[in-house]
Amino acid sequence: MSLLTVGSVAFDALETPFGKTDKIIGGAATYITLSASYFTKDNNLVAVVGDDFPQTMIDDLNQHGINTEGLEIRVGEKTFFWSGKYHNDMNTRDTVEVQLNVMEDFDPKIPESYQDCTYLMLGNTAPSIQQMVIERLNERPKLIVLDTMNLWIEIANPDLMSLLKLVDVLVVNDEEARQLTREYSLVKAAAKIQTMGPKTVIIKKGEHGALLFSEGKTFFAPALPLEEVFDPTGAGDTFAGGFIGYLAQTDDISFDNMKRAIIYGSAMASFCVEKFGAERIMNLTKEEINQRVNEFVTLSAFGL
Amino acid sequence: MSLLTVGSVAFDALETPFGKTDKIIGGAATYITLSASYFTKDNNLVAVVGDDFPQTMIDDLNQHGINTEGLEIRVGEKTFFWSGKYHNDMNTRDTVEVQLNVMEDFDPKIPESYQDCTYLMLGNTAPSIQQMVIERLNERPKLIVLDTMNLWIEIANPDLMSLLKLVDVLVVNDEEARQLTREYSLVKAAAKIQTMGPKTVIIKKGEHGALLFSEGKTFFAPALPLEEVFDPTGAGDTFAGGFIGYLAQTDDISFDNMKRAIIYGSAMASFCVEKFGAERIMNLTKEEINQRVNEFVTLSAFGL
Repeated sequence: MSLLTVGSVAFDALETPFGKTDKIIGGAATYITLSASYFTKDNNLVAVVGDDFPQTMIDDLNQHGINTEGLEIRVGEKTFFWSGKYHNDMNTRDTVEVQLNVMEDFDPKIPESYQDCTYLMLGNTAPSIQQMVIERLNERPKLIVLDTMNLWIEIANPDLMSLLKLVDVLVVNDEEARQLTREYSLVKAAAKIQTMGPKTVIIKKGEHGALLFSEGKTFFAPALPLEEVFDPTGAGDTFAGGFIGYLAQTDDISFDNMKRAIIYGSAMASFCVEKFGAERIMNLTKEEINQRVNEFVTLSAFGL
Repeated sequence: MSLLTVGSVAFDALETPFGKTDKIIGGAATYITLSASYFTKDNNLVAVVGDDFPQTMIDDLNQHGINTEGLEIRVGEKTFFWSGKYHNDMNTRDTVEVQLNVMEDFDPKIPESYQDCTYLMLGNTAPSIQQMVIERLNERPKLIVLDTMNLWIEIANPDLMSLLKLVDVLVVNDEEARQLTREYSLVKAAAKIQTMGPKTVIIKKGEHGALLFSEGKTFFAPALPLEEVFDPTGAGDTFAGGFIGYLAQTDDISFDNMKRAIIYGSAMASFCVEKFGAERIMNLTKEEINQRVNEFVTLSAFGL
């Protein structure tokens, strides 16, 4: 089924203990659609860039079957830019520079050909813009998945609360879940978020895996224990892209299928951190993905 | 098969955000043997207390089938005492007071009737004392499991290195594994520990579960997501007790059975944190344990 992803397409400059990059392609929607491209062929992007964004990067997206009809290119303006530096533990980072540029007044335009989308992934951006996307669709998609971040919980709380009422699944990390609910226990936090709107809550715990709460049930997906994390940038978005891409491909939103989708998302995220930026998830094979998913089976399976 | 546990039996005084206790029974060997008592009937304790240790507490251990023939009671001396205060997040604590008392010159005496032990659990205490236990056994047990802590890694490193060569399984938490190996990645840390002696390494990650490394394979056991952690004291020892108790009961040290043993250990630990000290693991039924283990299956099972 068709997937629509809305979010940022950006330039990133990254520095980790292993090295640094020049401006490379980044942004939530980039990671989401690239990750989803290994699952769904009807993969539609809405985002905005400046005319400094190279055609070769758009070609890269198209080569992964991503439909960029909804990628607005604003002449005379510059692409969103973020640069960050990771600390030695790779779990914390400092933002070195942010230039909002075209994202300052992102006005998401939905091409007519996208109107039949069944799955909607709202990548991290201002809640008011995310809500605009829902309102600009003629029909409500079958499943709306929302990502957000600490910034919006702080500075746009009423907008976020209004938006939460409209979505089916919230994907956040543990700190965001705690910040949103003021509950330390993730079980209590998830229950509280469910009263805010989303029936399904996914809490990402980075190297500690991810929790799925839905229908009164709980599922835990481990993260693959890795020898080395080269660059964690985009891992959360890659996770979300694998999750919704798998759901769109299978068109099954049962709890059991969401469990599988989270495992696929976790597998995609485990690839993402192996190289800088989106490099690794640009160059994957189905065989590699299936092999990685089988590693998750081996890692967590036990018989009584 | 018979299990021998050596370690501390102590008085603890605990303070958490939920309340505080007077002197209650504590100590690594207390938690280990109580937890193991739900699995093995041949459950032998070596420890030392002062004559201030009440007979009723010894009765409690005996009622759980724990053989206290090896519990030395030193007349005119006082029992090891520890008091601690947990912070609001329940993940960090301050030691308020430590009185080593009888533990200062703990000289573990192995009763003749314990000499045939098949499984040996070396609860956390000075590595030189732990090594003494191995040397005082006429025959090497089938499996030797070692717990240690940051203190010994710091102040008794040569002793610990010598001891590590003699044991089969090391159980440590993530910080201890990193401290011992100076490797941040737990995968690398486990591999390095395996070069120090133990073929099997278990890394406890508290609320984030536990990892088992052995025979080139890795298994991850989740922790049960809990609404409330009432008191984490003893959870790690309870985990170790469930692990070795299950192994002793089944007398099977294959990788597949160690996976099951870790799930049972995790289930026992999830009970431990529900009440103060050892209160909850003193009052469990087999049905409760089996039900809890099934919750681990539900939590982590998925089909592709």
